[in-house]
Amino acid sequence: MDILIIGAAGMIGRKLARALATAGKVSGRPIRRMVLADIVVPEKPDFPGEIDAVAIDLSNPGAAAALVASRPDLIFHLAAVVSGEAEADFDKGYSVNLDGTRALFEAVRREGMQRPYMPRLVFTSSIVVFGEPLPPMISDTQCLTPLTSYGTQKAIGELLLADYSRRGIFDGIGIRLPTISIRPGKPNKAASGFFSSILREPLIGEEAVLPVSDTVRHWFASPRAANGFLLHAAEIDTRSLGQLRTITMPGLSATVGDQIEALRRVAGDAATRLIRREPNATIANIIAGWPQNFDARRAEALGFRAETSFEEIIRVHIEDELESAVSERA
Amino acid sequence: MDILIIGAAGMIGRKLARALATAGKVSGRPIRRMVLADIVVPEKPDFPGEIDAVAIDLSNPGAAAALVASRPDLIFHLAAVVSGEAEADFDKGYSVNLDGTRALFEAVRREGMQRPYMPRLVFTSSIVVFGEPLPPMISDTQCLTPLTSYGTQKAIGELLLADYSRRGIFDGIGIRLPTISIRPGKPNKAASGFFSSILREPLIGEEAVLPVSDTVRHWFASPRAANGFLLHAAEIDTRSLGQLRTITMPGLSATVGDQIEALRRVAGDAATRLIRREPNATIANIIAGWPQNFDARRAEALGFRAETSFEEIIRVHIEDELESAVSERA
Repeated sequence: MDILIIGAAGMIGRKLARALATAGKVSGRPIRRMVLADIVVPEKPDFPGEIDAVAIDLSNPGAAAALVASRPDLIFHLAAVVSGEAEADFDKGYSVNLDGTRALFEAVRREGMQRPYMPRLVFTSSIVVFGEPLPPMISDTQCLTPLTSYGTQKAIGELLLADYSRRGIFDGIGIRLPTISIRPGKPNKAASGFFSSILREPLIGEEAVLPVSDTVRHWFASPRAANGFLLHAAEIDTRSLGQLRTITMPGLSATVGDQIEALRRVAGDAATRLIRREPNATIANIIAGWPQNFDARRAEALGFRAETSFEEIIRVHIEDELESAVSERA
Repeated sequence: MDILIIGAAGMIGRKLARALATAGKVSGRPIRRMVLADIVVPEKPDFPGEIDAVAIDLSNPGAAAALVASRPDLIFHLAAVVSGEAEADFDKGYSVNLDGTRALFEAVRREGMQRPYMPRLVFTSSIVVFGEPLPPMISDTQCLTPLTSYGTQKAIGELLLADYSRRGIFDGIGIRLPTISIRPGKPNKAASGFFSSILREPLIGEEAVLPVSDTVRHWFASPRAANGFLLHAAEIDTRSLGQLRTITMPGLSATVGDQIEALRRVAGDAATRLIRREPNATIANIIAGWPQNFDARRAEALGFRAETSFEEIIRVHIEDELESAVSERA
């Protein structure tokens, strides 16, 4: 089996490449070759088979065709200009998130016009395809009313994925990821950054800023769960999806207060005291329009699994990031 | 006021151009100039002001920019490759319905980057943005699950319209038209053609074929109502639309039996006897997935109006097509 990961240098893409390299197979079929692509050269995990890492801009003419020319059996399309940047740079957002995605889909179609070819294509969408007005509990049949250009581009990607799949051009499956917490790494300027940093920094004895109230509720899964979603999406029988080719992934609906209480139970009062409350009206306003809870029964029935408590999410972070970092250093 | 109609050679576009030329104003502002564009040169109605008719392919590079260069205050975008053709010719459907629409939207944005410009833009979508699974009554917050490439392209147009409007690039409003009945003209090969022909042909003493059962239910408005929707969309205050920039137009939910009964009341048994039942499983299967009824309260609250009985729809056809044709010949 040949695998292509586009967006392999990102946090999720790196974990996915490592997991595939370690497993060595998908659906019981051995992996012969992996191609890791991103706007920068992705790092290569240890892998006994053939592995390439390439820097490529999907929105450049010919880039998608070059990636697909080797006819991979399984394509992960994780690459995107993120929300804030797509909002600030209209042209770049549409160029990468819409034109780049369409160029990939078209490249697969062109390959199939030469001789039969129908790869599995896993596309990452986002819960930001949903915007106001939103019910407290959001089902898979909620209409897509994105409030950002990024959400618009992801919603268009979902529509294209469904149409190309319906026509038998590829076997597509889209997964709407929850907000990922705890994101490893350094604090960033994303409005959602505090959802990770208020746990991540205190766990290593550093201070973190909380810009919203404890009652703010949102929808979460760990990086490990996100990786599991991708691996599962690569393997499941897609015949039951019908026209609804994109699925909201399961997650945990939790408040900031729930997060802090879980931190207290895992790491004690000393950790929670490192959270400094610094209300920020701008961030609070952005967050106010975000979804709070989803009905993910469809994904669960298909076998997708996420954490069920924030203590579990914190323990996953400790195991995957802090303990493995210690052992890597050792 | 300067007006641009793209798709002005189609049935709806011709009626719209005539109506605007006759009214001579929109929202009380006199029309100074009209540009009628289509893939073939549209016919020009009598109009005392400036009027141009141009043949242009919106999907050609530079075509949209050329149309928008005169900075029309009001743009109607009605042009589309229709459902059957977009399904048969993948490239043409995406090229005209997606790329053409996006080229128009981008042309407006580029004009606005030179100096302030924000026209009203009226976009025609379709109820085929909705596909299975569908509830018996479909609201404006139903999720878009098109079953055709045409429906996918219209759904993407709706998403782009919302994003460009949210960003203040234009003042967009999308209207999802019901199936138009009675379409004037000759029978065509569209699966929906019989919804018009079983009334239109008997009204002039000709036979028509009915390929489905009398119990088939669907959603209708007359060409006159469709024209009214467009004129109203050009005039209403769009501030109340929020992020839901596209609205399902009101219509009449009726069965084929309702249509035939209305024909009997208007034109007698002699007319209904001209309907020949010739069941066609292919057409019946296509129609089975189509929407049957909509909750159009949102459109009605905004002042959009359609017919409330098929007798009314038949009388509209007689007034607008048969009597006016007689008087035109006289």
